[in-house]
Amino acid sequence: MILRIDRLQTELPGPSTPDPAGAAAVQELLGGKFGEMSTLMNYTFQSFNFRYRQGARPFYDLIANIAAEEYGHIELVAATINTMLTGVDLDDAKSEAYKQHYLFGGKGALPADSHGKPWDGSYVHSSGDLVEDLTHNYFLETGARSGKLRVYEMCDHPAARALTGYLLVRGGVDQVAYARALENLTGADMTKLFPSPRIPTAKIPECQPHIKKGEHLKLYRFSPDDYKEIVAVFNGKHPETGEELEVVDSPPEGFEPKDLPAETDVFAPDYAPEEIAEIAKKLRKDAGLK
Amino acid sequence: MILRIDRLQTELPGPSTPDPAGAAAVQELLGGKFGEMSTLMNYTFQSFNFRYRQGARPFYDLIANIAAEEYGHIELVAATINTMLTGVDLDDAKSEAYKQHYLFGGKGALPADSHGKPWDGSYVHSSGDLVEDLTHNYFLETGARSGKLRVYEMCDHPAARALTGYLLVRGGVDQVAYARALENLTGADMTKLFPSPRIPTAKIPECQPHIKKGEHLKLYRFSPDDYKEIVAVFNGKHPETGEELEVVDSPPEGFEPKDLPAETDVFAPDYAPEEIAEIAKKLRKDAGLK
Amino acid sequence: MILRIDRLQTELPGPSTPDPAGAAAVQELLGGKFGEMSTLMNYTFQSFNFRYRQGARPFYDLIANIAAEEYGHIELVAATINTMLTGVDLDDAKSEAYKQHYLFGGKGALPADSHGKPWDGSYVHSSGDLVEDLTHNYFLETGARSGKLRVYEMCDHPAARALTGYLLVRGGVDQVAYARALENLTGADMTKLFPSPRIPTAKIPECQPHIKKGEHLKLYRFSPDDYKEIVAVFNGKHPETGEELEVVDSPPEGFEPKDLPAETDVFAPDYAPEEIAEIAKKLRKDAGLK
Amino acid sequence: MILRIDRLQTELPGPSTPDPAGAAAVQELLGGKFGEMSTLMNYTFQSFNFRYRQGARPFYDLIANIAAEEYGHIELVAATINTMLTGVDLDDAKSEAYKQHYLFGGKGALPADSHGKPWDGSYVHSSGDLVEDLTHNYFLETGARSGKLRVYEMCDHPAARALTGYLLVRGGVDQVAYARALENLTGADMTKLFPSPRIPTAKIPECQPHIKKGEHLKLYRFSPDDYKEIVAVFNGKHPETGEELEVVDSPPEGFEPKDLPAETDVFAPDYAPEEIAEIAKKLRKDAGLK
Amino acid sequence: MILRIDRLQTELPGPSTPDPAGAAAVQELLGGKFGEMSTLMNYTFQSFNFRYRQGARPFYDLIANIAAEEYGHIELVAATINTMLTGVDLDDAKSEAYKQHYLFGGKGALPADSHGKPWDGSYVHSSGDLVEDLTHNYFLETGARSGKLRVYEMCDHPAARALTGYLLVRGGVDQVAYARALENLTGADMTKLFPSPRIPTAKIPECQPHIKKGEHLKLYRFSPDDYKEIVAVFNGKHPETGEELEVVDSPPEGFEPKDLPAETDVFAPDYAPEEIAEIAKKLRKDAGLK
Amino acid sequence: MILRIDRLQTELPGPSTPDPAGAAAVQELLGGKFGEMSTLMNYTFQSFNFRYRQGARPFYDLIANIAAEEYGHIELVAATINTMLTGVDLDDAKSEAYKQHYLFGGKGALPADSHGKPWDGSYVHSSGDLVEDLTHNYFLETGARSGKLRVYEMCDHPAARALTGYLLVRGGVDQVAYARALENLTGADMTKLFPSPRIPTAKIPECQPHIKKGEHLKLYRFSPDDYKEIVAVFNGKHPETGEELEVVDSPPEGFEPKDLPAETDVFAPDYAPEEIAEIAKKLRKDAGLK
Repeated sequence: MILRIDRLQTELPGPSTPDPAGAAAVQELLGGKFGEMSTLMNYTFQSFNFRYRQGARPFYDLIANIAAEEYGHIELVAATINTMLTGVDLDDAKSEAYKQHYLFGGKGALPADSHGKPWDGSYVHSSGDLVEDLTHNYFLETGARSGKLRVYEMCDHPAARALTGYLLVRGGVDQVAYARALENLTGADMTKLFPSPRIPTAKIPECQPHIKKGEHLKLYRFSPDDYKEIVAVFNGKHPETGEELEVVDSPPEGFEPKDLPAETDVFAPDYAPEEIAEIAKKLRKDAGLK
Repeated sequence: MILRIDRLQTELPGPSTPDPAGAAAVQELLGGKFGEMSTLMNYTFQSFNFRYRQGARPFYDLIANIAAEEYGHIELVAATINTMLTGVDLDDAKSEAYKQHYLFGGKGALPADSHGKPWDGSYVHSSGDLVEDLTHNYFLETGARSGKLRVYEMCDHPAARALTGYLLVRGGVDQVAYARALENLTGADMTKLFPSPRIPTAKIPECQPHIKKGEHLKLYRFSPDDYKEIVAVFNGKHPETGEELEVVDSPPEGFEPKDLPAETDVFAPDYAPEEIAEIAKKLRKDAGLK
Repeated sequence: MILRIDRLQTELPGPSTPDPAGAAAVQELLGGKFGEMSTLMNYTFQSFNFRYRQGARPFYDLIANIAAEEYGHIELVAATINTMLTGVDLDDAKSEAYKQHYLFGGKGALPADSHGKPWDGSYVHSSGDLVEDLTHNYFLETGARSGKLRVYEMCDHPAARALTGYLLVRGGVDQVAYARALENLTGADMTKLFPSPRIPTAKIPECQPHIKKGEHLKLYRFSPDDYKEIVAVFNGKHPETGEELEVVDSPPEGFEPKDLPAETDVFAPDYAPEEIAEIAKKLRKDAGLK
Repeated sequence: MILRIDRLQTELPGPSTPDPAGAAAVQELLGGKFGEMSTLMNYTFQSFNFRYRQGARPFYDLIANIAAEEYGHIELVAATINTMLTGVDLDDAKSEAYKQHYLFGGKGALPADSHGKPWDGSYVHSSGDLVEDLTHNYFLETGARSGKLRVYEMCDHPAARALTGYLLVRGGVDQVAYARALENLTGADMTKLFPSPRIPTAKIPECQPHIKKGEHLKLYRFSPDDYKEIVAVFNGKHPETGEELEVVDSPPEGFEPKDLPAETDVFAPDYAPEEIAEIAKKLRKDAGLK
Repeated sequence: MILRIDRLQTELPGPSTPDPAGAAAVQELLGGKFGEMSTLMNYTFQSFNFRYRQGARPFYDLIANIAAEEYGHIELVAATINTMLTGVDLDDAKSEAYKQHYLFGGKGALPADSHGKPWDGSYVHSSGDLVEDLTHNYFLETGARSGKLRVYEMCDHPAARALTGYLLVRGGVDQVAYARALENLTGADMTKLFPSPRIPTAKIPECQPHIKKGEHLKLYRFSPDDYKEIVAVFNGKHPETGEELEVVDSPPEGFEPKDLPAETDVFAPDYAPEEIAEIAKKLRKDAGLK
Repeated sequence: MILRIDRLQTELPGPSTPDPAGAAAVQELLGGKFGEMSTLMNYTFQSFNFRYRQGARPFYDLIANIAAEEYGHIELVAATINTMLTGVDLDDAKSEAYKQHYLFGGKGALPADSHGKPWDGSYVHSSGDLVEDLTHNYFLETGARSGKLRVYEMCDHPAARALTGYLLVRGGVDQVAYARALENLTGADMTKLFPSPRIPTAKIPECQPHIKKGEHLKLYRFSPDDYKEIVAVFNGKHPETGEELEVVDSPPEGFEPKDLPAETDVFAPDYAPEEIAEIAKKLRKDAGLK
């Protein structure tokens, strides 16, 4: 089971100049093979299918807990895409490759990649073999880091930059976590594989505020009472900086999502949204709210 | 963001006679077009893409909150499949259509349907238009109810029956919720469309314990502090029974998931799981746990 | 069986300024999830798979007959795309996303959506359960209406406008027909769900000529002698206008399709079409034609 | 536009012993790469996209008219599958690979192949180049003939045999038609390529009644008034038998489809179909029918 | 087994003005339905699955040997795409449809078509029936020739022109080879079907240098010691020119591929490639190379 | 370019008891995500797209050379499937899930996985970033090893066992090679990650003959004159056994493939193969062969 918290893990700027081409690029981080749908669903299914949990609890807890964090990542990418699409003119959109943002969605995010190819379950690797799944996860985070770096290079929209700056730092933590798990299980020392791709996060300006807050070292526990054994795996030193890794025993505080305006040319949420507002107002009143 | 709770929404029986053919059928409820991945991802993306939230808050809260419940449903279906696959002999499995349960997964659930077709993002409808999305959701729950009824008819494994008995009742609540939302927005009276498919839930024995507890009337709020305006939409009478609908201001208590045994012939979690257990034990100790 | 009539259901303007980007958008109405391939194939398969026809004849006839009309719709959309692609310069086309219009097709329509994703059979819902299928069909027409409205907004090419103006009116009739069928089967009153999306057809100029001719009220019977029981379901008042619904006991007269010119740069129908014309002339003569 | 005639092109036996495995095999003839959906849609799109029609009329008419016949073929295959699935016990069905016949469809045909892979638009070849498209069509009919022969070998259910016996003969006519068109356009003599695959139709008992009626020589004209120039191409001698090819200026008379019984365990058309019958009866009466 | 030779079958010009839109078009020749992945894999699988080889040896040898040549074709197309993408500015790339060249690949070729749709195994036809497979192969080469002609028309980048000029000539040889095989097996005379599409290769300037060298007449034997019976099928006269066909008993000499420069903005092969060079230098030295 | 050698890398037993279910399982090793099509195409595309080759030559040579070996692996898997399908009775095949082995193929291998899902290009990872690609390759070999182990467990047909015994040993060499490359580039020590999955190859009887011959230590050079710098990377000690790794400067000698008999019920290569033999005989004679 999950509880949802209506807050974003990092702060995103509000709509500015619409950027339909950029929004299409950012879709790669949502529904691409190495997008956040993939990290979410890989770790979620691995945790669902984890056999012999009590015997291997620290590893189960690690995977299940990171899965929970990833939900917040798809939320962030979707919010970024919505932000970048706010205000797009349909005349301009006709010449874009990603016409389905307008024809099929309401200037919103779709579970698809930068080509509009829908995300699919064949991207999930849940072999049951713990070392194999962890090896996969380490690779998946490597590919994901690569994707974020390239979206960063391609998109300079403030929302895309805020997103990638944050995700690069947090994805790095997951990459470290899976390497640590592998090291604990096999005795290998994977420290020197970092960073991978080999461009240091320290070179990316938008990562700095998060690094300053130590976000590259912290694994948050996303649960009221469970997954407490992550501390047994996520510890030791950061492979790049040598700083001590840290488990934070709660989720981050987060930020209130911005309420994006209606886009009436695609009927989102209606061609006359004020009528919905009036109905909502009455319903609230009838229910004794506010 | 989400918090994960390591409990299942309903109780499932433990492994008994393995049922590989039945497990393949149950996959339809996980990764089929009308499976729980679809309900989860439809409502999740609709909530991510919801514009003009403050104006339409009760509807936003409804969709976002049901999305949270659906996560618990994919968890339940996955647990059922794992249960049914526990103990499958690989010799028997060779003659099954669903060989990937063994060749690719570790006798675990895959994000695919009963034919092994991976779930994909084209099953998600997030048009931005609120009435359209709600119409979709009502239809999706109708198709999902149909799928559950048919899996129920086809599978008599105790875990499959416990699963479908529960999901039929809970899916019914969502179907009612979306009908209520449409009624509130348009003024239509959809009461007489229930039940759909038209076989009454009351005829299905495995639904009865849940109906007795009133589970067909309750919408749980799956959030520490958010989505409180669901009460503005989910109210009035149940279309079939005339009983009063009810919002429960917390998640259900749930049940501890069973720890399924290792399956060493598919290396889940290893061909020698006791070695992992020993490593885990040491890691726990080093971390000062227990 | 079918008989084909070489006429279009509405009149389309001939080629004018080529519009490759617009043609790509219009593909969504052909091979998109909510395009005319989907309506055609959904109703066709539902009619093929209809069990207990004699007992439920008026509903069988309704679905089978609307399926027949839909064939005319894919024909219209294809003609529109061909019209919009006539005269496209290949140099300009290189920068278009939809390169397959030129590389794979001969400046003609493809059974794919606006992203070039091929239409596929997973878009067909034929559950066998009549109420479920009708619920689906009502939703499908809602999504289809939404798609048409958005293509209308995005494309101002005269052929695209003529197409969407016509299809919006005719799709509306189908939406009403399925709602009427559901009402008859369940007793529900779905009147107030119309229009959906909630923008009134009356606001769209290109719909007006068709509304004036009463095309929003008429269900044509597309068969020499069959499907006569549609009158038992398609009757009563139009949910938006209150006018009487009407069954026309024949197909519409239709319009002769325009003969679009050869496009020799993509060898359609040849790099030297006049050679084909000469061969054809001789063959005709040999066969005693004209 | 089309008109639908509620009759089948050949007679099919009614339900006998259910044959779920055979029905799955027959799906290959419906939604496989070389199934009837492919022949239907290839010729339909080629006719829609045909440029310079007046100049190349006999070829346009040929393709458009064969497209019309193919609609009757998907109808026949679907009827066969429905027949073979009638009476399947769901307990038996659980061990079948094609579980979606029961879980997703109502013991009815799906637009998918023998593996359940949905038919998709990438099977359509509509290049615009006439010689290329005809070459494709000749090959497609060759592959289709191969598929029919193999389904014939694999399935001995009477409906499957009746179907393949008929389709082999009629598909042969189309194969000849496209070879004739190519010969007329290029001057090549393709006679000796027949039969392909090289097993003579004369060796297949279920083909004999149709051959006796000359069905291997006739091209029917499926239109009230159009496609009359097919005679300019479809003429000369049959490449295998030397008999004269013949155009029949009307569709075949056909056979009334059997009304297959309800299957209440999959709710087709309902769990209580007699309730639908009663409603239908009343609706008919209200409409003044019979 | 294969041996690889690190040379290209024809010479390609080095990088000039980057052409991202053209590179996307050229992808159709790599991973499109009629691209070189399709020719390679069709003939490869047909050779793997060839039964009764000794009895039908000349045909087995022909298919197996042409398969070997096709490997060199995917290599050429990939080299062309890499050449055209060299130096693309990521800012410009954002507005391209084919964003995955940069987000997912490193300005390199992907096994996908011009729409980014991945090549897939459903494009392979390996029926086991020799006449059927050869008919398919003749058609496949026809479609492939059509694709090359259209890419030629659309792209004027020097590398694209060099590529298509060469492939048109060599693909023509394969088309002839399969026609010859069919003629030998059936007695048909397919000579007059050439050229298909009917535009003569002689009209295309970039084909001339290769025609002058007789490349349109030669079938190379791509094996140290095998596939010698190709001479039994590939002989006689070229259907268009009447010149004698010829088997060359070795592969062509080929050309050294150009070493394309690093693209550091997509980290290919690294953001700091000189570090790799240094490592490589040391490794070479340690291994006693150069 | 490649040269083909008509020999298999290892010896396979000839046909014995047909094993259709086993053959379907073995398909996973051909067209599954971790099958040999994936290893072949990943390394092939990475070598095609390798930029800055001269600077990074030893790594380029390594990847290009392993790609060449993989071709021999798809050949072996295909031969195994053909062997297992030889003699399958079509009556038995009807109840198999993998009906396309008979309906679409001629009892031959298809480029698809154990579910019949076609292999597709989305399985290829060619990011351009060398460390990322090598990390991928190490993971891919890990997943591939897992698949082979599971097919080994599921299938006891002699051909399947011979295949998996060989591939496990050879795949292990590739896994070591990529680990060595990563170690050389980053300085990491991955030795302790072996074996992965953690079951030692030494426990599998069918691997022993190959291990005895030192096949687990040798990297063959598959080229007449190229890829000589592989020695700069593939050296040092085997991570499991500590024995010295070794480059063999030629391909293995290999074994002549068995000529599998015709299967006339699926027309492979014909319903009357002796007719083909006669034609072939004559063609050979005319060409002056033997």
